[in-house]
Amino acid sequence: MTTLPTPSMLRPASYVYGTWHANADGQTLVDAVYGRPVAVISSEGVDFAQALHYGREVGGPALRRLTFHARARALKALATYLMERKEDYYALNLLTGATRRDGWVDIEGGIGTLFSYAGMARRELPDERFLPDGKVEKLGKGGTFVARHLLVPREGVEVQINAYNFPVWGMLEKLAQAFIAGMPSLVKPAPQTAYLAERVVRDIVASGLLPEGSLQLVMGEPGDLLDHLAEQDMVAFTGSAATAQKLRVHPNIVARNVPFNTEADSLNASVLGLTVRPEDPEFALYIKEVAREITSKAGQKCTAIRRALVPRDRIEAVVEALRRELGKVTVGDPSRDDVRMGALVSTDQRERVQATLTALREEARVVIGGEDRELLGGDREKGAFLDPTVLLCDSPLTARGPHELEAFGPVATLLPYGGLEEAVQLARMGRGSLVGSIVTHDRTEATELVLGMASTHGRLLVLNRENAEESTGHGSPLPQLKHGGPGRAGSSEEMAGIAGVKHHMNKVAVQADPTTLAAITREYVPGGEVREDRIHPFRKTFDEIQVGDSLLTHRRTVTEADIVNFANVSGDHFYAHVDEIGAREGLFGRRVAHGYFLISAAAGQFVSPAPGPVLANYGLENLRFVEPVGIGDTIRTRLTCKRKIRKDLRPGEVRPTGVVEWHAEITNQRDELVATYDILTLVERARDGADGQLHP
Amino acid sequence: MTTLPTPSMLRPASYVYGTWHANADGQTLVDAVYGRPVAVISSEGVDFAQALHYGREVGGPALRRLTFHARARALKALATYLMERKEDYYALNLLTGATRRDGWVDIEGGIGTLFSYAGMARRELPDERFLPDGKVEKLGKGGTFVARHLLVPREGVEVQINAYNFPVWGMLEKLAQAFIAGMPSLVKPAPQTAYLAERVVRDIVASGLLPEGSLQLVMGEPGDLLDHLAEQDMVAFTGSAATAQKLRVHPNIVARNVPFNTEADSLNASVLGLTVRPEDPEFALYIKEVAREITSKAGQKCTAIRRALVPRDRIEAVVEALRRELGKVTVGDPSRDDVRMGALVSTDQRERVQATLTALREEARVVIGGEDRELLGGDREKGAFLDPTVLLCDSPLTARGPHELEAFGPVATLLPYGGLEEAVQLARMGRGSLVGSIVTHDRTEATELVLGMASTHGRLLVLNRENAEESTGHGSPLPQLKHGGPGRAGSSEEMAGIAGVKHHMNKVAVQADPTTLAAITREYVPGGEVREDRIHPFRKTFDEIQVGDSLLTHRRTVTEADIVNFANVSGDHFYAHVDEIGAREGLFGRRVAHGYFLISAAAGQFVSPAPGPVLANYGLENLRFVEPVGIGDTIRTRLTCKRKIRKDLRPGEVRPTGVVEWHAEITNQRDELVATYDILTLVERARDGADGQLHP
Repeated sequence: MTTLPTPSMLRPASYVYGTWHANADGQTLVDAVYGRPVAVISSEGVDFAQALHYGREVGGPALRRLTFHARARALKALATYLMERKEDYYALNLLTGATRRDGWVDIEGGIGTLFSYAGMARRELPDERFLPDGKVEKLGKGGTFVARHLLVPREGVEVQINAYNFPVWGMLEKLAQAFIAGMPSLVKPAPQTAYLAERVVRDIVASGLLPEGSLQLVMGEPGDLLDHLAEQDMVAFTGSAATAQKLRVHPNIVARNVPFNTEADSLNASVLGLTVRPEDPEFALYIKEVAREITSKAGQKCTAIRRALVPRDRIEAVVEALRRELGKVTVGDPSRDDVRMGALVSTDQRERVQATLTALREEARVVIGGEDRELLGGDREKGAFLDPTVLLCDSPLTARGPHELEAFGPVATLLPYGGLEEAVQLARMGRGSLVGSIVTHDRTEATELVLGMASTHGRLLVLNRENAEESTGHGSPLPQLKHGGPGRAGSSEEMAGIAGVKHHMNKVAVQADPTTLAAITREYVPGGEVREDRIHPFRKTFDEIQVGDSLLTHRRTVTEADIVNFANVSGDHFYAHVDEIGAREGLFGRRVAHGYFLISAAAGQFVSPAPGPVLANYGLENLRFVEPVGIGDTIRTRLTCKRKIRKDLRPGEVRPTGVVEWHAEITNQRDELVATYDILTLVERARDGADGQLHP
Repeated sequence: MTTLPTPSMLRPASYVYGTWHANADGQTLVDAVYGRPVAVISSEGVDFAQALHYGREVGGPALRRLTFHARARALKALATYLMERKEDYYALNLLTGATRRDGWVDIEGGIGTLFSYAGMARRELPDERFLPDGKVEKLGKGGTFVARHLLVPREGVEVQINAYNFPVWGMLEKLAQAFIAGMPSLVKPAPQTAYLAERVVRDIVASGLLPEGSLQLVMGEPGDLLDHLAEQDMVAFTGSAATAQKLRVHPNIVARNVPFNTEADSLNASVLGLTVRPEDPEFALYIKEVAREITSKAGQKCTAIRRALVPRDRIEAVVEALRRELGKVTVGDPSRDDVRMGALVSTDQRERVQATLTALREEARVVIGGEDRELLGGDREKGAFLDPTVLLCDSPLTARGPHELEAFGPVATLLPYGGLEEAVQLARMGRGSLVGSIVTHDRTEATELVLGMASTHGRLLVLNRENAEESTGHGSPLPQLKHGGPGRAGSSEEMAGIAGVKHHMNKVAVQADPTTLAAITREYVPGGEVREDRIHPFRKTFDEIQVGDSLLTHRRTVTEADIVNFANVSGDHFYAHVDEIGAREGLFGRRVAHGYFLISAAAGQFVSPAPGPVLANYGLENLRFVEPVGIGDTIRTRLTCKRKIRKDLRPGEVRPTGVVEWHAEITNQRDELVATYDILTLVERARDGADGQLHP
């Protein structure tokens, strides 16, 4: 058993313009369990204008010199580094009132998000400093005027204002997205748990793994920080809706159109399906999910279930089962192994929750709670403990409190409903939520509820016996999925995979002629100039191949024998190829070559057979058969290097390789396009012969 | 020659909650050319709360009942209908001071945007009421927990506040995006030219082509409109940065997190490349482009060139050439054929421009203008005429006016620069622009300027001899491309193809088991349940095939003969297939079958050869070869209906068809996946035999 640490007074410091900045006096923070002083924080003396300037002039340029993949490698190395030091964070986590399990979400969830973004960036982004986005648009019939969107890093600082409940995850998930995009972060954690965020930043700085200036940290009040924001900066805010509204209208933010991303707490609903009977596995799943959401992090989660929507005739059964489940929850010192739920972050917070509870009781009555549980360690007065509490609102369609007042603690309200339409109506009365869940095994019911709730939610979980074992639960945002919701939840989006990275970039439409557009984007643009020389492109290493390198093959006349032979070797005797009568009445009015024959014959035209740098064709995209090819038609193929994707040597890999994407066009004797597609090949990089080392 | 109409006093009316609403008294509008009264507008008596309610409760549900394709068909029909009535709009256009050529951008540009969005929606969106977005995410190793993002229409009204300069285009481009998304519009045109917008709306309403409630119109002041906005509503604003800032902080908009999209005027730059000599075609192109942007719409375009960046040693040549070019510009009554430039919208507007000119002259001097041109018709006093004016600022790096003060009329300032870095710095001093242009034939220079300006611009045009003929010019936003810019320009995005539609939708991440996710999204999810029956899926019509219908084929053992035969018929003798020695030393350590053989043999397994409803395989996507297949390996294929895309019968087409996308997986004898891909087929719809009619 770990015991709650009794640290000598912590002095968390700001990290700005490359230096640590602490003050002896400031705001005293106490632990959540015994109310003992643990830290003093103050931003007194921090020059916020200088911090922003430093981020823009030092951090930004350093980050933008790295490619997406280099940023991803740095983030992955950092994640590994921090994971080795996680026990230090778990120790401080206990002081915030959170159990080790709560801390897992914050600490390992946060570090895991760094790993996730490092992986997604490597898989989904090119090894470049900007991102071509979407397809090339042909703007004129002649093909001389084309366009494409590019995404480039915003050349400012992202100010990240975080909530107290997830000091590590909240910081690292925002950092991950900004960092991959190439934008420096200035983190302002909530004071209550700022010492934990600071502990992590100390390690990040010590690691030397991130470019200087890419991460700054402010302990304490933000002073005149917002007054100095400029057009290329951004704000990402997590916290209460009220604070978000106050900050969003800051005159400088408004005057400069500084993007302001809000993730606010919301009145999230979980719906028990109409079809679920108490003996179904989904009933037990629902009870477990609601109980977990009430108790984990003592209910201090913006994604927690606040409104439990239950078919009216199941209310009694749900209250009974929830009472049993919550009865097992032990409350007390989170360092004790026998404690399931720790404390709120502060006695102030407890008072706020109690005040909200009082307001909620005007329209709902407490059905679970208030039974004066035994406290397993911790101080009843000075610690911020509160028992799990469940209310029942009998008239949820007319009540306002349950849909508007958020008790940010271990509190949820049961709302009975009649039919599915009513359930949807109630869910929507939250006026925009981060997440909702639907517990049912009935797919018709799930579909109706999901589509009914879709416009007012950022994430919807359908939970049932099929996915319960692997489900990450109602309350867990995931890096791959949107975190955010409309209306009350903030009308914003974080994460959602690479989408969250793109929000940190400026999208610009670039219009040019094809050759210039190719030069700018470093991807071949159809219609642009190509380069042909006497070396077959498949004889060049990855490093030698250039975008635009092209080969126009010899010709081949397609004969009846080809079609017959191909039908025989493939076994594909489709009438359009082999049945003179059927084909005449068919779509093309005559026998035509197999589409797969065309791309196979094209390979026969452009492949260079002897061993060489091109190791394999591992995939194909965007294949379209444009015109049929009949007996007697003559085809030839143009193969052009479209783009190159560098790859790092993985541990254990012996051949350094890269991916080369080729654009292929097959034409006929009238120069009509008959097929177009892109081929993915794995190509060896240049080597110094014997030692297998990469050339620089 | 058309003459300027002298209409009997127009009484443009509001169209709200299904009725026309006019007032006898109100704001009197005058024409821009002679200053004669033309219209009275007033929103007195309009119940804005009711209008929003009507949009939400009547227009929204009606729109959401239509699929994307049905909305697209309505939009296309509307565009055709309006195009037939365009001369009515051209007549009123003259009253705004605009020439017919100016009007073409507004009127036919606007109607063209309807056509464009109808086309993009048909090509790029499914025939559904919601849009699955991005790929299916596997959230657990076992594959029982998966997720996908969905986009659904916001269930509110978009309030569209438009600028006076493009009363038709500004309205129709916003309407197009909202309409395709499934969101009703409430249009508030700028008063000065509101009568033209109203004329178009009269026709739209009379056409009966849009569902009732999907478009409402307010003439005059917006009253308490913004007080009644709710969480699912949106605002799209085009106009001055100052007004945008005022509206964005409206307490109700802030409290409910109502998305507020801003397109504000900006200080757009056009750069003449350093490498361009006066005798190059690019020099002449630059002069033409700058002159056109100064004069078209009398410079009243948010995308106009305000800052002309010219190499310091070319300034004299540019002034000289511009003077010649602008000297040809005739000013006067826009109905006259000999007039190139009409009037500003109002004498008030002329006064504002003159005031800004005075302010600009503190840091710049007039080099072209003030020569008292002859006026060809129109009233010098009561008409809002202003001669084209060009200023020169000698110290643009230290001046503020040229980068901050927008003279929204026929005015531009020349800014000399030294090197490319200085040009980039000057361009960026506009603190965020809608568009910039770069005139050069040098690709290195173009690349440096584009990448330097990318973070502060929404669109960048590279103009040169290659694309000049097809170029749509600096000032033209296009439906396919982003319209919007960071910072000063509003930090927002319109159009950009389907992206502009998506901004009107809520994105929700849906987590479920694969079968439930497939039921919700109506697309097969790998790992989900499939349906197998004794009818081969290729024997079913489009209407009979269901998502999830699946075929597991017979097996085939791949032999050496297959590889040899395939090499012979394709001509692909790559060593990995046919050279025992090379293959042993190669990537796979042995001879393997051609990838194209595998997909050809798979077709041989799943194709049903006799004529039937499946007419052709016209494409293939997402092909990945996962594991090599060697001699003696045995493959089989599973083909599953992934999704269905309905298609309308085009004029002249005889066979009603639809697109069926199939997911194919080839596995080996160890049940390992060897290849995975999606096939696109064209499939006949059910017919009543003889008459070729579709079943209902």
